[in-house]
Amino acid sequence: MRRVVSVIGSSNATQEEYEVAYQVGKFLAKKSAVVVCGGREGVMEAVCKGAKEEGGLTVGIMTTYTGEDANPHVDIRINTGMSHNRNPIVVASGEFVIAIGGHWGTLSEIAYALILNKKVIGYKTHRIDAVEHVDSLEELLERLDAML
Amino acid sequence: MRRVVSVIGSSNATQEEYEVAYQVGKFLAKKSAVVVCGGREGVMEAVCKGAKEEGGLTVGIMTTYTGEDANPHVDIRINTGMSHNRNPIVVASGEFVIAIGGHWGTLSEIAYALILNKKVIGYKTHRIDAVEHVDSLEELLERLDAML
Amino acid sequence: MRRVVSVIGSSNATQEEYEVAYQVGKFLAKKSAVVVCGGREGVMEAVCKGAKEEGGLTVGIMTTYTGEDANPHVDIRINTGMSHNRNPIVVASGEFVIAIGGHWGTLSEIAYALILNKKVIGYKTHRIDAVEHVDSLEELLERLDAML
Amino acid sequence: MRRVVSVIGSSNATQEEYEVAYQVGKFLAKKSAVVVCGGREGVMEAVCKGAKEEGGLTVGIMTTYTGEDANPHVDIRINTGMSHNRNPIVVASGEFVIAIGGHWGTLSEIAYALILNKKVIGYKTHRIDAVEHVDSLEELLERLDAML
Repeated sequence: MRRVVSVIGSSNATQEEYEVAYQVGKFLAKKSAVVVCGGREGVMEAVCKGAKEEGGLTVGIMTTYTGEDANPHVDIRINTGMSHNRNPIVVASGEFVIAIGGHWGTLSEIAYALILNKKVIGYKTHRIDAVEHVDSLEELLERLDAML
Repeated sequence: MRRVVSVIGSSNATQEEYEVAYQVGKFLAKKSAVVVCGGREGVMEAVCKGAKEEGGLTVGIMTTYTGEDANPHVDIRINTGMSHNRNPIVVASGEFVIAIGGHWGTLSEIAYALILNKKVIGYKTHRIDAVEHVDSLEELLERLDAML
Repeated sequence: MRRVVSVIGSSNATQEEYEVAYQVGKFLAKKSAVVVCGGREGVMEAVCKGAKEEGGLTVGIMTTYTGEDANPHVDIRINTGMSHNRNPIVVASGEFVIAIGGHWGTLSEIAYALILNKKVIGYKTHRIDAVEHVDSLEELLERLDAML
Repeated sequence: MRRVVSVIGSSNATQEEYEVAYQVGKFLAKKSAVVVCGGREGVMEAVCKGAKEEGGLTVGIMTTYTGEDANPHVDIRINTGMSHNRNPIVVASGEFVIAIGGHWGTLSEIAYALILNKKVIGYKTHRIDAVEHVDSLEELLERLDAML
């Protein structure tokens, strides 16, 4: 069994969020962790791009039956056909969850992670107390280093 | 087609939340609105109980395949077998959403309601800005009266 | 709790299938059973139409988040947003299942009904041995009469 | 993007089905195709075991939120928490589908594959005409060789 980490965040990422997600992807790949995400643009694209540049493996839990909405850095498309209802699967499939920014979709994923008792590390995401918030990329990577 | 309103909240309701949900159920039934909820205990039970006492109709979107987890005031059990993944269906099926208290399950439902552009009226629930918060039963019933 | 019966069949019904589904809807409504179906055209429309003409109650388990694909005889739209993945919910929500004609969607529903140990009564549907097949409307209504 | 093939069949496999699934797993891995399956015992275990012995990659679409029901040869657990409702995801995620034996769960997966216009190659499985049936392991591997 491979170690798997879920990365969540908006398909409309800011440049800062994109860069953080990209660095997280690189870091996870260096640690040999598989990246699971929603497979689309923004944060999802950035984390997959980073992971692939370090030879990592990326899985996209797609909203469609065809996976045609996948970003080009997704290795394995899990095609659910369930639209937004695929969100719980994204977080359930990781050992823990990294939330970077994000809008309502990300909030639904954070909520599901908490329902399922998963640790959530948040970078500039929704201010939910049960999330472990970090304020810089350095702090985020330190936390990941401790966990992997 | 019948008017349908979604009511969400914790299975572990406080006495106050239970009473508010019960009064909301009565009010919705008097307005001939069908109540859709998660079909279990706490807020879900209270709203169904109130609705039934006024001759209303109640639908529970159940987590199981059998519906055996339904509270006794659910008329129609929609058996999903999908565990917590049934949450988006609860909010997607109502014209708008009433959130009473609630924990992570309720947060996931609020998030899905916002993804789907549904109005959410919240009574002592998660402090999400996009929710229209009310602070008393009277204010809540006034809002419902305006909407139904 | 109301008695609920699932009715499944193709959205592309033949005239014969449409007429049988319509009569089944009327019969179920006379027996006070709630009709649950996929909420769309063809067999689903016919069974809802029949039920409504006898004052029955109809529930559509819709593929969309909006329910805009419902036929006009659906009273309560359960909006899943899950496309074809809503099929198991249709059969799980009924006490037993009536299959009228049908294509691959219907086959998936028959399979789920059998997974869940539901009785399936089939009228000119897929030749699955575990289905109880009937060859005429009269025989079908007799079976329903015995069960309700 | 990696090529992905779905393999379906019963968790209660006969010895013959187990052996065929095991050989299919080896063959897919040699062809560098990722195996997607339901992640449990029987045919699912056999195909994962075969794939791993040839250095392949295996993905299990699990029924639970935890993945604890995975067989030991699953590399990546996609945890759906949706019980049998995860079946459409198994077939939607592969380029085509190989069905080996199987009971009602397999029938539901064949039906979903046909809904989604996926080719299904069947070895001693349900006698559905739209499935391309093969009668021996040799014939099955020849077909796979032509497709990969």
